[in-house]
Amino acid sequence: MSTVTTREWRLKSRPVGLPKSSDFELVTAEAREPAAGEVQVRNIWMSVDPYMRGRMNDAKSYAEPYQLGQAMTGGAIGEVLASQHPDYSAGDLVRSMAGWREAFTANPEAVALEKLPAANLPPQAFLGVAGMPGMTAYVGLLRMGEPKEGETVFVSGAAGAVGSLVVQIAKIKGCRVVGSAGGPEKCDYVRSLGADAAIDYRKAGDVKGLISALREAAPNGVDVYFDNVGGDHLTAAIDAANPFARMAICGMISIYNATKPPPGPPNMAMIIGKRLRIQGLLVWDNRDMLPDFLRDMPQWIADGKIKYEETVFKGIDKAPDAFLSLFSGKNTGKMLVELA
Amino acid sequence: MSTVTTREWRLKSRPVGLPKSSDFELVTAEAREPAAGEVQVRNIWMSVDPYMRGRMNDAKSYAEPYQLGQAMTGGAIGEVLASQHPDYSAGDLVRSMAGWREAFTANPEAVALEKLPAANLPPQAFLGVAGMPGMTAYVGLLRMGEPKEGETVFVSGAAGAVGSLVVQIAKIKGCRVVGSAGGPEKCDYVRSLGADAAIDYRKAGDVKGLISALREAAPNGVDVYFDNVGGDHLTAAIDAANPFARMAICGMISIYNATKPPPGPPNMAMIIGKRLRIQGLLVWDNRDMLPDFLRDMPQWIADGKIKYEETVFKGIDKAPDAFLSLFSGKNTGKMLVELA
Repeated sequence: MSTVTTREWRLKSRPVGLPKSSDFELVTAEAREPAAGEVQVRNIWMSVDPYMRGRMNDAKSYAEPYQLGQAMTGGAIGEVLASQHPDYSAGDLVRSMAGWREAFTANPEAVALEKLPAANLPPQAFLGVAGMPGMTAYVGLLRMGEPKEGETVFVSGAAGAVGSLVVQIAKIKGCRVVGSAGGPEKCDYVRSLGADAAIDYRKAGDVKGLISALREAAPNGVDVYFDNVGGDHLTAAIDAANPFARMAICGMISIYNATKPPPGPPNMAMIIGKRLRIQGLLVWDNRDMLPDFLRDMPQWIADGKIKYEETVFKGIDKAPDAFLSLFSGKNTGKMLVELA
Repeated sequence: MSTVTTREWRLKSRPVGLPKSSDFELVTAEAREPAAGEVQVRNIWMSVDPYMRGRMNDAKSYAEPYQLGQAMTGGAIGEVLASQHPDYSAGDLVRSMAGWREAFTANPEAVALEKLPAANLPPQAFLGVAGMPGMTAYVGLLRMGEPKEGETVFVSGAAGAVGSLVVQIAKIKGCRVVGSAGGPEKCDYVRSLGADAAIDYRKAGDVKGLISALREAAPNGVDVYFDNVGGDHLTAAIDAANPFARMAICGMISIYNATKPPPGPPNMAMIIGKRLRIQGLLVWDNRDMLPDFLRDMPQWIADGKIKYEETVFKGIDKAPDAFLSLFSGKNTGKMLVELA
């Protein structure tokens, strides 16, 4: 056992609009020898996710805001270097919320530490397809979307970590699937996942273009909408929705960096006539579905029914770049930072 | 049996924005002797309701648009004058969708004719407290709102036909109730129904004023929102909503006359963090609750737990005025036109 040098990203200033590199600061620190009840972990992978943008604001939300001058947090996969806790041993692969740093020493409960579930998957899959984004897709589509065979599912951000899995789970459930993404390459990727149609929202241009593209791609209307984008995408989904359509609102990446709240959909009155059900989704309200998820998802991957991509940045110094790339749509599938 | 002279309101032109008197035309017609299978009915009461505004547009919606040059339709209570149908006899009190006219002859199915349910209530109550508006309040609050004892229910349009009943049913269910209405007299009325607080939205001014008034009136936040108004009211409700709040979207009278769809709430992103459930409500999707409603509501009225008001215009010639008054907020409780 020995002290380990680590680098960690701290929030230096609260971003206004799109975060800048200067809002973050890479600081050298120490991960000391574990005291009784503690573990010392070297991170191998860390996750960057759109929801982290909200935590950079000083606003009460479902997740605690990051504190200025302190290390940020987020999902990470690491290896136990030393343990003074009976449940962990050196060499264990673990997942924690102590991301944005190379190593740490902590009480397991304080960082939500857990051993990786037994499954024949690479460790970083537990930050993506078999982790929070995968569970989000699973819960949001199946519990809130309630898709029935033959129905049409529309998912925005369909080339992303969550959306790419929604596309494929919806196909497994026998639905017609329409995905939206930015640019022809991503649309090709969405189709390669099995989507029946892909909409290039950049080509569509404005909300009118998006609405006509969606009507064309979903001639029978939309029964389930899985929202990762918000804004015009939500307006288009309401427009194309069939009576009794269900909408799982998982993310609104199009407005996370807005300095002033943008207006909502101008067609909200359609909620009444169409009897829409619009529901906000936070994955961890649905922990009761975790056993089902950990049974289904590895099996689907083994059966070749679920494919997944990763976009990887290497080195802790690249973590803010990886995070910022989420907002310019540079990732296909799960965005990860490889640390070791 | 004989032919009866009647007057009926026809839609002369499709209104743009707030309807004008010149959009309607009162025409004299005949209600002829009933043929086999038909009944001849003299209307005693007719209903005017905000939803009728939507039917004046030439837009596909849940209710068929009114046709230009033809008599409009809507809820009415009448007395059978003559019957050639085995289920009806002269003197029967009936409810139908053949409103906006003094008398008619029709096949019962064609006008959704039904005898009034047995209940110790005046006939026009079956257009209000014991009819569609009452059922709307009952279904929307209990099925979609799922109020629990001690929770806070916010209802907009709380002095109206539906809202005034939502206030009282929520009190019966042990909730804290906040109602909004326009002007001090209506707010007094809302409080007289048992509401713990009433918000005068005219005094509140803009959406900021509405939000602070609601925060003050609902210090523990809003668990259930029953929307009759839309627009700023919905924004304020989302702002004040507690996690897992339920919203029944029943009406958006604030925007029915908009010539251009107004922007939606700028705080839609809160749907995610608060895990809101927002659901559109059309009463007749919930016919399975009709027996419960017809059991509970007359009993609540008999027990003095539900009070109701009517605002009455007299004579068929006043029907458009009654309808238009809905949009200037002239009614307390159910707006009716007495025809005979």
